Amino acid sequence: MNNRPADEKKETGRIEAFSDGVLAIVITLLALELKVPTPEGNGPGLLQALIHQWPVYLAFLVSFFFILVIWINHHRLFTAIRRSDNNLLLLNGLLLLTITLIPFGTALVAEYLQSADQNVAAMVYSGIFFVNALLFNALWRYASYKDRLFDANTDLRLAAFITRQYSFGPLFYVVAFVLAMFSALLCLLWSLALAIFFVIPNRTTPELVPEGDNPEVL
Amino acid sequence: MNNRPADEKKETGRIEAFSDGVLAIVITLLALELKVPTPEGNGPGLLQALIHQWPVYLAFLVSFFFILVIWINHHRLFTAIRRSDNNLLLLNGLLLLTITLIPFGTALVAEYLQSADQNVAAMVYSGIFFVNALLFNALWRYASYKDRLFDANTDLRLAAFITRQYSFGPLFYVVAFVLAMFSALLCLLWSLALAIFFVIPNRTTPELVPEGDNPEVL
Amino acid sequence: MNNRPADEKKETGRIEAFSDGVLAIVITLLALELKVPTPEGNGPGLLQALIHQWPVYLAFLVSFFFILVIWINHHRLFTAIRRSDNNLLLLNGLLLLTITLIPFGTALVAEYLQSADQNVAAMVYSGIFFVNALLFNALWRYASYKDRLFDANTDLRLAAFITRQYSFGPLFYVVAFVLAMFSALLCLLWSLALAIFFVIPNRTTPELVPEGDNPEVL
Amino acid sequence: MNNRPADEKKETGRIEAFSDGVLAIVITLLALELKVPTPEGNGPGLLQALIHQWPVYLAFLVSFFFILVIWINHHRLFTAIRRSDNNLLLLNGLLLLTITLIPFGTALVAEYLQSADQNVAAMVYSGIFFVNALLFNALWRYASYKDRLFDANTDLRLAAFITRQYSFGPLFYVVAFVLAMFSALLCLLWSLALAIFFVIPNRTTPELVPEGDNPEVL
Repeated sequence: MNNRPADEKKETGRIEAFSDGVLAIVITLLALELKVPTPEGNGPGLLQALIHQWPVYLAFLVSFFFILVIWINHHRLFTAIRRSDNNLLLLNGLLLLTITLIPFGTALVAEYLQSADQNVAAMVYSGIFFVNALLFNALWRYASYKDRLFDANTDLRLAAFITRQYSFGPLFYVVAFVLAMFSALLCLLWSLALAIFFVIPNRTTPELVPEGDNPEVL
Repeated sequence: MNNRPADEKKETGRIEAFSDGVLAIVITLLALELKVPTPEGNGPGLLQALIHQWPVYLAFLVSFFFILVIWINHHRLFTAIRRSDNNLLLLNGLLLLTITLIPFGTALVAEYLQSADQNVAAMVYSGIFFVNALLFNALWRYASYKDRLFDANTDLRLAAFITRQYSFGPLFYVVAFVLAMFSALLCLLWSLALAIFFVIPNRTTPELVPEGDNPEVL
Repeated sequence: MNNRPADEKKETGRIEAFSDGVLAIVITLLALELKVPTPEGNGPGLLQALIHQWPVYLAFLVSFFFILVIWINHHRLFTAIRRSDNNLLLLNGLLLLTITLIPFGTALVAEYLQSADQNVAAMVYSGIFFVNALLFNALWRYASYKDRLFDANTDLRLAAFITRQYSFGPLFYVVAFVLAMFSALLCLLWSLALAIFFVIPNRTTPELVPEGDNPEVL
Repeated sequence: MNNRPADEKKETGRIEAFSDGVLAIVITLLALELKVPTPEGNGPGLLQALIHQWPVYLAFLVSFFFILVIWINHHRLFTAIRRSDNNLLLLNGLLLLTITLIPFGTALVAEYLQSADQNVAAMVYSGIFFVNALLFNALWRYASYKDRLFDANTDLRLAAFITRQYSFGPLFYVVAFVLAMFSALLCLLWSLALAIFFVIPNRTTPELVPEGDNPEVL
């Protein structure tokens, strides 16, 4: 079942294009949360008003980098996953559901960061990312189980790397969720550090090489 | 007329990409209806305010899964439809019209779910999906009539499956519309069940296999 | 200069994809103008409130069909135009500018359709489409002048059809603009008729056949 | 390392498609800042109200042309850059971050153009474009350093042109930033002139020719 010809990328190509569309829209809509302060006659001036909005910028930054991480992850997965079935469509759909919720979570945590309800807001926010991480895991486990959705072109070294990485990934998000119970700011800062750590290339990350290339000779 | 070379996918490729774009935007805009509750001094607290918004979440979920179903359906159709003409452009345009109306219908039913006007809202909402289903039928009938827009690569077993499935599909939406006259909540729950039933793979659903593959040997 | 190899579609492919993206977003954003009526205690009821919004629906419909017409036109042009240069990028950019203004024009005419300022609103609205038609003409004249941006694969019969069609096209929009001075409703109805006339296939319209096909044998 | 086969465009293809998606959405969202004036009983009339909004139109125009320039630049860069690595993903992500901020900056400068806070608004606005230009530089320097992300198909004449152009490019944005300290209007007019100068083809700009073509014979 796995020694099929190498030209069958088509189906995941469509899933990837649709998911990329959703991710491009979500990452752009994030910035719509940055509101222009309404001019006030005797107000504190624009500069102060802009600085006063710092929770909005912080939440925006965290979410922006997380969506970037999600995009990179999604592509890494679909470099290995090359076949498609109806279960994959459903799992990817649930993944997209959590992704479209990110702007809502971002606005929520920005609005309530300095209020008494900050913990609820931060738990909803980090909860979205936690469920997202779980769904990434579920999708990968489903696709990689007995190489179900791989084909002859799948780089098994990359697949092994993803499996290793995903075995402890959700733990990071559990920490964010627990931190949210104590301080929304702490939760955001941890999440920012996490997203930047994920997005910055490190030695253990294999390059996202175009398929067909031989990673050994790079 | 039907024994043409196999490299003529181009025209429906453009229709599919445009439709996918609209679907990706619509599914993402849905989540913009999830509003952040405005903080209140002596209010009931954020958690209660969020729980109070449950009609918005329910309507969001129903619409999200329906758009997923529409996306899967649209691709299944265009796996079989491989040629294009001006009538197809028009029919697909009308289909897109009903799709862009979904966020409006969703917001409407969420806003009025618990008011006296719930039936009007739910009838508009389920009416959009009913007309959408009718247009899917019209598009399919037009394209499949005497294999009009098929070509040599069209999987006729898939085409027969779609024809069978579409012969009773709109009935489900009539039921939703009738339920809307009695209770908006019942209409939403029925629609949710319907969408989940459609989206969850079942034995009778052929896999969306990449074209050129032979389904028999799967 | 024109007998170049047939594999040089790449550059217009990028222009087309970008333009399609803008068109898909604009056609979807249109529906965001359909606002949910705010529930009123002693108000006229939802059904009446929805019916009362008819100018919004009418303007939405007109603009929706026009964007569909623009999409079909844009693709027809770029079936013939197969090479690219910096002037084409600029002309297409100006075309996109008028396209992104359509939601604004639509909201304007819907808001003022029944007020004393209806003529100004309708003139702005039809003015956007008039400038759009002029830019379509300019782009086509630039590209088709001495077959500047054609190549060996360009269907010259299609090119001749477009030139013929575009020679009188803007006139229709002048009529819409003149009607706007008298009645915004008349202007909208004329525009709707125009858009539907353009979008409905007719005998003189060549099919949008995939390139490489020979239209004579269809 | 550089004499690899010519079919490895895939990875930057994905970056380009994602970036194009973001750019298409941002350029379309810009026009959402054009608000329909609310009808007033004894107000100055729609025409006056529309004319009164001129700062919004001016800021819209400047930003629209700048995004067009960014799109053209991005493609020119990725005509030369043909390989990808994780650093490129990060640099391109930061570039996209500044791009998604443009609608916010545009709304800010339009709102405050005629107020005492105009300088702060214009400095934020031109600051976004300055950081964007710096990131374009950083991305190009990273990719072109020792031909790191080029391959055998990279047009080295185009690469040399870009390096020359980028060596003084950010200076123009410094001027805009300095002008912003004195007058927001002056800053906007300079930026408009800059964007139009960039977007209008000139003798020194090589055509964006499809790869594989020989620019000499054009």
